[in-house]
Amino acid sequence: MTNRQIVLDRLPGGDQLAPEHFALKTGERPSPGEGEVLLKTRYISLDAANRAWMQGATYRSALEGGQVMAGGGLSEVVESNVAHLKPGDLVFADAGWQEYAVLPGKRLEKLPDLKPETHLLSVYGVAGLTAYFGLLECGKPKAGDVVVVSAAAGSVGSIVGQIAKIKGCHVVGIAGGEEKGRWLTEELGFDAAVDYKSPEFKRLLRAAVPDGIDVYFDNTGGPIFEACLFAMKNFGRIACCGALSQYDGAPPAHGPRGIPGLIVTKRLTLRGFVVMDFAEQNEKALADLQGWVASGQLKVQEDVLEGLESLPGGLIGLLGGENRGKRMVRI
Amino acid sequence: MTNRQIVLDRLPGGDQLAPEHFALKTGERPSPGEGEVLLKTRYISLDAANRAWMQGATYRSALEGGQVMAGGGLSEVVESNVAHLKPGDLVFADAGWQEYAVLPGKRLEKLPDLKPETHLLSVYGVAGLTAYFGLLECGKPKAGDVVVVSAAAGSVGSIVGQIAKIKGCHVVGIAGGEEKGRWLTEELGFDAAVDYKSPEFKRLLRAAVPDGIDVYFDNTGGPIFEACLFAMKNFGRIACCGALSQYDGAPPAHGPRGIPGLIVTKRLTLRGFVVMDFAEQNEKALADLQGWVASGQLKVQEDVLEGLESLPGGLIGLLGGENRGKRMVRI
Repeated sequence: MTNRQIVLDRLPGGDQLAPEHFALKTGERPSPGEGEVLLKTRYISLDAANRAWMQGATYRSALEGGQVMAGGGLSEVVESNVAHLKPGDLVFADAGWQEYAVLPGKRLEKLPDLKPETHLLSVYGVAGLTAYFGLLECGKPKAGDVVVVSAAAGSVGSIVGQIAKIKGCHVVGIAGGEEKGRWLTEELGFDAAVDYKSPEFKRLLRAAVPDGIDVYFDNTGGPIFEACLFAMKNFGRIACCGALSQYDGAPPAHGPRGIPGLIVTKRLTLRGFVVMDFAEQNEKALADLQGWVASGQLKVQEDVLEGLESLPGGLIGLLGGENRGKRMVRI
Repeated sequence: MTNRQIVLDRLPGGDQLAPEHFALKTGERPSPGEGEVLLKTRYISLDAANRAWMQGATYRSALEGGQVMAGGGLSEVVESNVAHLKPGDLVFADAGWQEYAVLPGKRLEKLPDLKPETHLLSVYGVAGLTAYFGLLECGKPKAGDVVVVSAAAGSVGSIVGQIAKIKGCHVVGIAGGEEKGRWLTEELGFDAAVDYKSPEFKRLLRAAVPDGIDVYFDNTGGPIFEACLFAMKNFGRIACCGALSQYDGAPPAHGPRGIPGLIVTKRLTLRGFVVMDFAEQNEKALADLQGWVASGQLKVQEDVLEGLESLPGGLIGLLGGENRGKRMVRI
């Protein structure tokens, strides 16, 4: 009756995240009280945001050292003291990096039966909905628009680019390395890919978007954001989804050049968002995503690691860009 | 039959604008050809944008050294070779810093008879319309919102704050010096003013908006922009109107911190605009502005200098923030 857990032993502060920030512990399996459920973790989602939570309050409170590392995933109900959930049901839960968790039942909802269930964490989970709402609600692409997405081989970026193609746009993905670029163009149907690790990055970007960018979906911030800002067309839109380049390490001393000057002269709109802001439109979004997956227009790429112990290294590797598609860990 | 002109003798490049960048010349009064009109300049508008035009292409082509300095204003038709204009009519014209100009008539429109005619360059001109559209279309303030405006004692800022008060907002103006601050609160009805020249600026701003900012109307960019960005509430809107702090001198090496990180976590919208983007709504805007001026809810402050020779110094002083309200020069 044990419960193995990964604890965030100490906060990384301005350092790069490393294995020694985490520790494996064995606790006791908790018991659910009134209105609570006991959950067994099946899959834990790994996301750049996990690292951002260590930097301070974001859209959720800051993490503290010494506690079970926070993280969401797919869990199975083992014991239930609420009427709407029974053993065997699957739920999304903010259960942390551990095998078992007790949570209040009232905010948990039974998930639909859907195979493979990992899709609930990728295309039908936060990644897919983030791509969908960020692109369509913040980017507002029209057919023929030039759409650029950074971290294009990641869980969100790979879906953003494919949705933009479905909407009739010309799509350029920014990703690290030629191999990822080939995957984007040959497998996912992107029109072009640009390698941000190339010393020629800015020139390559300009060559890929000679007439400028209508919609830029930013997952990275930093120099990639700046390069795209300077390449925007008049009346362009930037969907600000994350700042991957800025999560792992000390906060940057300065922001990108051209702010706010280029926003004015090019009449740009920049909009930041978090997926839960659009929750009331989830049903429509999921129906669209399921239709595109069923028709083969949207390919789902998942990167599933095995075992609780692989969580720290899996997150560190994700921050370094080693994943392709949605990374998660099977527990 | 002479035509005195102020020439932009050489571009300031990364230097601060100075009198030696300009030269007074006397040319010959031009004659209108077919479809053209001869205009006599009455008032020339001075705007921070005049300096931005010297930095490169913006929403208009970059200025070049050796030519008559560009600038718009109020001109009187002296001779007309078009049917819709006759001698004595007043028009807005991009006539440059000179006593006389010949322009094609087809893009000129007769202005309504309105007293004082200087209002055509302030509250009913670019300044008033910029304030109106930027605040209402980009800022989207609701009654009760906390609205902050920078360069608040300037031509645009002083109108932004008053419109925000008319819309039921709590209004804080950022301006240089205590005297301007007193004018904003005592004469224009702002709720508070913050002196950006104070070494305590950030603390004073925080104290003036303890719960944060819903709408920030940015005229300055730079450190003021950054301080307001950090003070934004979730779902706040930033109307990007100009970057006064960045026009006169070398371009800044870096942009404000917090971009794009704070845009994401606070789910902000930043929107740049230029007044002509909203031209099709001008009629409604002018009707609103005229109504507010007539009812005394909107006070119009003008700063009228005398004579062509005062144009260079008037612009240099405006960039240093010495004006209160709309600055123009009577020719």
